[in-house]
Amino acid sequence: MSGLSRRRLLGAAGMGVTLAGAGVAAAAYSATTATAPASSPADVVPFRGTHQAGIVTPAQDRLHFVALDVVDGDRAALQRLFQKWTTAAERMTVGAEVTPGGALNRNPDAPPDDNGEALGLPASQLTLTFGVGPGLFEKDGVDRFGLAAKRPAALRDLPSFTGDDLDPALSGGDVCIQACANDPQVAVHAIRHLVRMGMGVTAVRWSQLGFGRTSSTSTAQSTPRNLFGFKDGTNNIKAEEPDELARHVWVSGGDQPWMEGGTYLVARRIRMHIEVWDRTSLREQEAVIGRDKGEGAPLSGGTEFDPADYSAVGEDGKPLIPLDSHIRLASAESLGGVKILRRGYNFVDGTDGHGHLNAGLFFIAFMRDPFAQFVPMQSALANNDALMDYIEHTGSAVFAVPPGVGEDGYWGEGLFA
Amino acid sequence: MSGLSRRRLLGAAGMGVTLAGAGVAAAAYSATTATAPASSPADVVPFRGTHQAGIVTPAQDRLHFVALDVVDGDRAALQRLFQKWTTAAERMTVGAEVTPGGALNRNPDAPPDDNGEALGLPASQLTLTFGVGPGLFEKDGVDRFGLAAKRPAALRDLPSFTGDDLDPALSGGDVCIQACANDPQVAVHAIRHLVRMGMGVTAVRWSQLGFGRTSSTSTAQSTPRNLFGFKDGTNNIKAEEPDELARHVWVSGGDQPWMEGGTYLVARRIRMHIEVWDRTSLREQEAVIGRDKGEGAPLSGGTEFDPADYSAVGEDGKPLIPLDSHIRLASAESLGGVKILRRGYNFVDGTDGHGHLNAGLFFIAFMRDPFAQFVPMQSALANNDALMDYIEHTGSAVFAVPPGVGEDGYWGEGLFA
Repeated sequence: MSGLSRRRLLGAAGMGVTLAGAGVAAAAYSATTATAPASSPADVVPFRGTHQAGIVTPAQDRLHFVALDVVDGDRAALQRLFQKWTTAAERMTVGAEVTPGGALNRNPDAPPDDNGEALGLPASQLTLTFGVGPGLFEKDGVDRFGLAAKRPAALRDLPSFTGDDLDPALSGGDVCIQACANDPQVAVHAIRHLVRMGMGVTAVRWSQLGFGRTSSTSTAQSTPRNLFGFKDGTNNIKAEEPDELARHVWVSGGDQPWMEGGTYLVARRIRMHIEVWDRTSLREQEAVIGRDKGEGAPLSGGTEFDPADYSAVGEDGKPLIPLDSHIRLASAESLGGVKILRRGYNFVDGTDGHGHLNAGLFFIAFMRDPFAQFVPMQSALANNDALMDYIEHTGSAVFAVPPGVGEDGYWGEGLFA
Repeated sequence: MSGLSRRRLLGAAGMGVTLAGAGVAAAAYSATTATAPASSPADVVPFRGTHQAGIVTPAQDRLHFVALDVVDGDRAALQRLFQKWTTAAERMTVGAEVTPGGALNRNPDAPPDDNGEALGLPASQLTLTFGVGPGLFEKDGVDRFGLAAKRPAALRDLPSFTGDDLDPALSGGDVCIQACANDPQVAVHAIRHLVRMGMGVTAVRWSQLGFGRTSSTSTAQSTPRNLFGFKDGTNNIKAEEPDELARHVWVSGGDQPWMEGGTYLVARRIRMHIEVWDRTSLREQEAVIGRDKGEGAPLSGGTEFDPADYSAVGEDGKPLIPLDSHIRLASAESLGGVKILRRGYNFVDGTDGHGHLNAGLFFIAFMRDPFAQFVPMQSALANNDALMDYIEHTGSAVFAVPPGVGEDGYWGEGLFA
């Protein structure tokens, strides 16, 4: 490992190389790191494109998610911040420092732009995904940034659901940034520096680390397990299904042209009561989920990826997949065709102060309309899902995720057009 | 990835294979996983040996550390728990379930012994390291388990240090278990199940996840960076230095024969004020640490592993390595030869409620006598270290770490002999 590798990438960028996608990033890499490669092309996920990265990108293993509030500054300050964030984010996704020479700058009497904790680490498939919350458009009845007319109808606070136990300190936010990477140090480095650049304009509202992905977003990935021990995300929408993505994930023809090609992100911090779960029989666990624990096959039979047969009944005449099972209630069949793209992570946040680990699933999902997709799904689950006895939603937020950043564009530029 | 792989390992163990070290574990592996290898021999760190694993083991990338209090039960219950923990820990370190058939047991009407979230994952170099705190020997003047006479003189609560801001909810504990692995899901799985097995006897006091190692414990490892961006642990004691380990880490000839070959673990949760650090010039940062940021070389010159020359002065007649620099005050030269084996991790625990990330370094160190090593070192640092302006110790604990577990032995058996 060499501290030079990131500096070299940075040097290339500083000399005017435009890092406009995987091909170019790879070229920048090969031109500048002959002796100390930091990032191979496979390590770099293109930052620019039609859609933002970190949505259909095959889910990386680690997450650092932050929600920020805008605490000061005007519309111009916000716009400048989004521009600065874009430049820094693109640099970090190819494994470079925040600014050219940022960590070991030539003026030792100035604070370094980049703290350097990721020096020498590869890009690690870092993606940075940016969204804006309802409060950016109007907060307490005030249109702080002249953006009220830009608010899409689909971006508003979610309703309460049965059983919600939301902590305001873990909910909401004017802006979100999702960092996913295969090395948590790289994800934390990115969030820390974007937070730092926001100082004076934004402040951290809440932040969540996730250590293990709980969904696949590509057919090339195996299905991971959540902290209840079940495979999670078997029936997720996959990157290889463009029709499904167009139908359920990407905004098109909505009320706000700046959101064309964007999507909405719903985040829910779901505390899992693992001690209660651990006292539950295997049979009951499988009935609650609707799948067998070993293979992840639906209880109607077959193997993991066989479709669930919700009409199948056992010898006793009862449905093989119980009426209150999680997969039945969350299924497109039960919800009039509704689907979402899930991209969540397992978490453990210390203890709950009562002798237990504070563990669960940080649910992230992308969809074209939270009120047409997440709200009916969560309503059905909150009222009837057998799983609700074992979990509790303790945080909630919704963000509009603008489309991808074109060449010379910046995050959320449509807001200011 | 196949859920069968761990079950096969488990099957082998269930049939009576003794997993008594790397060789045997590897044999069990090769005999049982022909079609679905979960753990290669390189993935498995031997559980049994002269010393516990997870001390000189080359530091893995991820940590889950838990401190437990004994809340109920008598001496016999404690002894049974330590025995059960040992059996389960050894199984998990080879990638097997907690008990044979534990996840997908043959009685579906019973809760599974193993929740299964690590099914199909390799052993990931999991190590589990066990220690006992002062409270196990006497708490509030009560000898709860008839162990008071077994307390080593070196195991007692640490004194307060200047600037300490300790949270009792993040400090102390009767028992600790350190899980290190290259996959955080494997470390969390292990801690979660050991916690679960303790129910009715122990309860979680505090728990800490760490996402990136901040020390090397082997010359084969590169030096990682902490969240201040500096290489950390350059001069750490390494596994390849048996004389140094014998002198500074392993207990020998102490007052308690059961601790022969053991060591002491000091844990300190160190909050780093990264926002303050980020406003500090590179020159000042390097002066605070005593090394240059890029290479990690001492400010007296040379490269990373060159010895620091604390007598070197600059043209202005001042020491090149400042008198209040961290490396000078923590050096063996300043401390009459004192050294410790550091094995800490970076952490980010959400926010501090004031718009900042709650980030820092979870310091773990091993030594043969905390009062002869950590206490003088931390006293010198707390009173004079320039770094103290940027950090705060918010948690503290000390544990006696018994020697390794011999064949047919169990964790801490010397306590009950």
